[in-house]
Amino acid sequence: MFLKNCWYVAAWDHELIDGKLLARTLLEERVLLYRGESGKVVALNDRCCHRGAPLHLGRREGDCIRCMYHGLKYDATGKCVQIPGQDVVPAKLGVRSYPVVARDHLVWIWMGEADKANPDDIIDFPYLRDPDWKGIPAYLHYDANYLLIVDNLADFSHLAFVHTHTLGGSEEYAYISKPLAIERLERGFRVERWHMNAAPPPFHRKVIQDKDAPVDRRNIGHMHIPGIFFLESLFSPAGTGAEKGNLEGAKQYRNCQFMTPETRSTTHFFWNYLNNFEADDSNISRSLLNSLIEGFMEDKHIIEAQQKILDEDPDFKLLAVVADAPLVHFRATLARLIAKEQAMQISAAASKPAAAVFSPELAMK
Amino acid sequence: MFLKNCWYVAAWDHELIDGKLLARTLLEERVLLYRGESGKVVALNDRCCHRGAPLHLGRREGDCIRCMYHGLKYDATGKCVQIPGQDVVPAKLGVRSYPVVARDHLVWIWMGEADKANPDDIIDFPYLRDPDWKGIPAYLHYDANYLLIVDNLADFSHLAFVHTHTLGGSEEYAYISKPLAIERLERGFRVERWHMNAAPPPFHRKVIQDKDAPVDRRNIGHMHIPGIFFLESLFSPAGTGAEKGNLEGAKQYRNCQFMTPETRSTTHFFWNYLNNFEADDSNISRSLLNSLIEGFMEDKHIIEAQQKILDEDPDFKLLAVVADAPLVHFRATLARLIAKEQAMQISAAASKPAAAVFSPELAMK
Amino acid sequence: MFLKNCWYVAAWDHELIDGKLLARTLLEERVLLYRGESGKVVALNDRCCHRGAPLHLGRREGDCIRCMYHGLKYDATGKCVQIPGQDVVPAKLGVRSYPVVARDHLVWIWMGEADKANPDDIIDFPYLRDPDWKGIPAYLHYDANYLLIVDNLADFSHLAFVHTHTLGGSEEYAYISKPLAIERLERGFRVERWHMNAAPPPFHRKVIQDKDAPVDRRNIGHMHIPGIFFLESLFSPAGTGAEKGNLEGAKQYRNCQFMTPETRSTTHFFWNYLNNFEADDSNISRSLLNSLIEGFMEDKHIIEAQQKILDEDPDFKLLAVVADAPLVHFRATLARLIAKEQAMQISAAASKPAAAVFSPELAMK
Repeated sequence: MFLKNCWYVAAWDHELIDGKLLARTLLEERVLLYRGESGKVVALNDRCCHRGAPLHLGRREGDCIRCMYHGLKYDATGKCVQIPGQDVVPAKLGVRSYPVVARDHLVWIWMGEADKANPDDIIDFPYLRDPDWKGIPAYLHYDANYLLIVDNLADFSHLAFVHTHTLGGSEEYAYISKPLAIERLERGFRVERWHMNAAPPPFHRKVIQDKDAPVDRRNIGHMHIPGIFFLESLFSPAGTGAEKGNLEGAKQYRNCQFMTPETRSTTHFFWNYLNNFEADDSNISRSLLNSLIEGFMEDKHIIEAQQKILDEDPDFKLLAVVADAPLVHFRATLARLIAKEQAMQISAAASKPAAAVFSPELAMK
Repeated sequence: MFLKNCWYVAAWDHELIDGKLLARTLLEERVLLYRGESGKVVALNDRCCHRGAPLHLGRREGDCIRCMYHGLKYDATGKCVQIPGQDVVPAKLGVRSYPVVARDHLVWIWMGEADKANPDDIIDFPYLRDPDWKGIPAYLHYDANYLLIVDNLADFSHLAFVHTHTLGGSEEYAYISKPLAIERLERGFRVERWHMNAAPPPFHRKVIQDKDAPVDRRNIGHMHIPGIFFLESLFSPAGTGAEKGNLEGAKQYRNCQFMTPETRSTTHFFWNYLNNFEADDSNISRSLLNSLIEGFMEDKHIIEAQQKILDEDPDFKLLAVVADAPLVHFRATLARLIAKEQAMQISAAASKPAAAVFSPELAMK
Repeated sequence: MFLKNCWYVAAWDHELIDGKLLARTLLEERVLLYRGESGKVVALNDRCCHRGAPLHLGRREGDCIRCMYHGLKYDATGKCVQIPGQDVVPAKLGVRSYPVVARDHLVWIWMGEADKANPDDIIDFPYLRDPDWKGIPAYLHYDANYLLIVDNLADFSHLAFVHTHTLGGSEEYAYISKPLAIERLERGFRVERWHMNAAPPPFHRKVIQDKDAPVDRRNIGHMHIPGIFFLESLFSPAGTGAEKGNLEGAKQYRNCQFMTPETRSTTHFFWNYLNNFEADDSNISRSLLNSLIEGFMEDKHIIEAQQKILDEDPDFKLLAVVADAPLVHFRATLARLIAKEQAMQISAAASKPAAAVFSPELAMK
């Protein structure tokens, strides 16, 4: 159901401050995330192999974690290194650990086969480490499948109706600002949309001086497998030729959104909406954060209602309109990758000898 | 599971005041009800055919409704008449509409095959439009199957135990006031029950002057398929010959109750308890409304407990006693009608060519 | 799933004070418990055989119970003895009754075949009737299978981690105080555990004078099928030879715990923690009650989390460590008894003629 062999965002790194044991379900697996005393970020299956108690109720000891039911202790690789009252710890005892990479304030996790995890495959969003770009990292929880959020982002005409008074600005946006270009990419899509000579939308209007001057507005969106969205937004004084490359007087935003499945019907939604013009006025970031929360709550309201409706009737077929071309391409691409991954796992399982399994009898010896 | 080809009450008409978009699940389908600008009442499937967003989060425009996700607009027949940003709207695009009739303050809906809907089949309760009869239309939601409420109304002996201090008056009612007559009707039943020389029950006592004079009490109940109950109640001075037709000094009530399935285990319950003696004293209607709410909450308490118990053990067989003759007749009649309707649908489906289905490819052209 | 032919604790007798109708689900059956006017304790299936209404919403009349929906009345054996408005009550009409025994403030119930119920099989805990031992009977509800509580009690090393600051005292307890003896019994197990020269644990420290003197601590636990735990605890001045039988200056506790399944994933947990040294100072019992509630809430927190984790993944295999020997023995014994009981029921059912079933037709005659 999920693509496993790829990198997902598991957390913002500030969520692991001060040794916090963060319990988070990812792709329907319970994961415990924490930063060990050495600074290393650890991700383990959040379930003691002994009696199934959750490790996030445990205690961090150095880079290790101790289950606080009967005291079993695991190192950062998940290996059990101590059983109180028992002299020998069987070698195979332990819990699963997951490859993790902390980079640019994000904690990335690999939920698939560990030997295929390559940190170089992590998609780069350089603005998160660029001191010229300022923003506040944020999180929302959705009671909806992550692909419904991907769908939402694939068609900006919804700005006109869902976000008229926040991120959109006018219903005109749906009628006039057709995408200039839709590019089907190997693992995603790119859309470009222009709206010429428009009033600045409310979220932007709040952070600029000349609130009534019309703007030429451009959005370029990139969606990447498994559900990572980058948006470059430009607002230029109307008629000054932004479409021909003249960016004088333009204001820009760089926005990243990471949709990570919690379960098939719930999602962790991480984002940051960055600007490069606030200089020392951090109220601009704060205003943008609030505007985005306001806008995303509008999405959340309709997307969660949509999820309920879809849950009620599994036979309901969604119907594609012209604007759904990127969405259809993305869902087809993802489905193909998942099918391929599952086929490879089945054939790998068939050709491998049965894995040795830890047996209770051994443990009792 | 439900009889589809028949009229159900969907709402009181005051629920559609001021353009209100009323989302109501009926027979396990999501229905959007509203009164268009022209005054016409519209009932549509509450799910946009595009991405499944609920139309009740949309906006009424004239008699039309616009989905406020991507802006698709539907007319009162459910046909899609606009897709913002797309020039051509495929002819077959739309959502299902349901036949509706607004009559005597009730909104009736037909959930089955539209071509079989005949407004003349709506059961008439003339007191709702008769200015001599006064009452306040009311609504309760039940966490119970609608037939458990039908069952409840089929045996008035429960007045003695459930409603002793509200609608009943004494436990004697269960022992003495046996039904005079039970009539099995083609699509329902009629029961008549007399209780001679009794104290007036609390709800009636509150609205009369001579609170201590004994009464002869008569209830005539009619239950109609699918779950419509009419009750004529008479309280006459004891011993003055009401049973022989002398109604001098009698006070009467006309009560209608409409049980409409929301789901298999929840019910919309509409009622009005009318009197013809309040003249200008509207406190009488108000007192009766309060008494009935009090009484129906007693029913609701026991019926919802019953539903939970039945849910827990699908093998539990309810056991009929003598007083259950009308109930048994009603359930058997309804089961026969449902079986017949389903058999006809299956044979109709077999003899019809496959319906043309709207295809996404077409929409993308 | 449950062992049926054995005695379970259904209630403390104070729960039935003043004619209280106690509705309690036991082994996934709804049971109504009450003390009749004669003093006899009655246990009936809490579901009227007529329309399934719950009898606990009914009214006690003598030793009988009347359903307050349509007034059917049942005697203490469950036989229906009155149907208001109907002259004849069919002989077989009624609800199931369960053998019950009230003894030493406990109400025991037998959920299996009534003819096999022998009160002599009830396990005796004499301290509950011994005036020298004082304590306060208590109850907790668990959202967890009862065997997870049995497991918890089978390994006292958890005192070190779960109850460090309440019932345990130190983490040392897990490492040093290995069980001296584990005895596998025919229907349970016995464990003995000593901790020499230790600080008194917090719950004990609160009720003694010499709070800083080290103690030799001994716990002897007995677990009995189906989930009954007796614990004898001893605290003796350190080094005075308690392990050789010198109990001078020792303080002792007697503790009983009864785990009765409500459903497969919830449990009724009854206990009493008795001491023989409070004399007239009832604050000692009160302090112990509070300490035990505090400690059991720690268990409940981790055990309920464990239950959720096990529910999520039915394929997860719990892994036994050395300390789990008693737990493994108990679960295997219980599984064998349940399998045997079910096999006997199947063979009994095969050799018996079909039971006569009450028929609605008869009732309507």
